[in-house]
Amino acid sequence: MAGRVRYLGGFRWEGIEAEPYKPEGTHFRDVARQVLFGAEAGGVSELRYFEVAAGGYTTLERHRHVHQVMVVRGRGRALTGDGVAPVAPFDLVRVPPLTWHQFRADEIPLGFLCRVDRERDRPERPDAEALAELRRDPAVADFIRV
Amino acid sequence: MAGRVRYLGGFRWEGIEAEPYKPEGTHFRDVARQVLFGAEAGGVSELRYFEVAAGGYTTLERHRHVHQVMVVRGRGRALTGDGVAPVAPFDLVRVPPLTWHQFRADEIPLGFLCRVDRERDRPERPDAEALAELRRDPAVADFIRV
Repeated sequence: MAGRVRYLGGFRWEGIEAEPYKPEGTHFRDVARQVLFGAEAGGVSELRYFEVAAGGYTTLERHRHVHQVMVVRGRGRALTGDGVAPVAPFDLVRVPPLTWHQFRADEIPLGFLCRVDRERDRPERPDAEALAELRRDPAVADFIRV
Repeated sequence: MAGRVRYLGGFRWEGIEAEPYKPEGTHFRDVARQVLFGAEAGGVSELRYFEVAAGGYTTLERHRHVHQVMVVRGRGRALTGDGVAPVAPFDLVRVPPLTWHQFRADEIPLGFLCRVDRERDRPERPDAEALAELRRDPAVADFIRV
C-alpha cells in the first residue's frame, strides 16, 4: 500500500481500525490500539498508536525487545527503569530490554506512538518477588497497578 | 539509555542534536534531521524527525527499504507511488520499495517522523529516463525538484 493515509481528527486514521489493547485481562484498564504501520507496510518494525482513557493504565510488564515511544496526546505518567516521570505531547520514552514499564493516563486520555520490532518476545508480568522489589521505591509502589 | 527524553518545544528534544539532512548536495533544500531513536535505543529500526523549511524539499529518490512517515508539523505535499498529495499533522505516508518520493513544505515548515530499518540500501536518484517517465504526469512534472 502506497501513499497518504489521511488523519481524520480525534486520533483516528482513514481505514485503520481501533482494536482492543489485549484480548483479555484485568491487569490493564481502558486501553485501545491502532496499528499505523503493520506487516503490510513492510520493514522489520511496527508503529502502533495506543490510547489510555482518563484513569486507565497499560499492563505492568517487561520483555527483551525495546519500546520506543512518542507521546502525542494528553498527559500521564510513565514508569521505566528511571522511575516514574510525567509525560506530555512529543516527549519520548525509551524502554530498554527487561525493564518494567507501565503507562498511566491522568484525568485526560494519554495517547502515544510505540515502535517495536516485528519479531519480538512475549511480555512477562511481575511475580511476587519482582513486585516486592519494585515496591521498595515508594514512588513506584504508589504508581504501579497490577 | 532509559526513561523519558523531554520535549523542549519548537520540535527540539533534550540532548538530541539537529544534524544536516545529508552531508552535501544540490538536490534538496533546507532540510534538517534529528535522530529520535537511533542505534543506542536498540531494536532494528530508527525513528528520525525531519524538518523541511518553508519552500524547501527533500531529495527525489527511491530505494528498496520502505519509509513510514507521520507528519507532525506544518503543511506540505508528498510525492509517492500514488502521485502528489497534500499532507498535514498526523497524516501518515507509506513509501513502498523502489517508489520515487519527495516531500515539499508549503509556505510554513513541514515536520515529519520517519521510521526506517537500520539495515537499509542506499537511495538512488532518477536518471534522465526515470525523470522523463515521472514527468509524463503533469502534476508530478510540476511538483518535483531535482
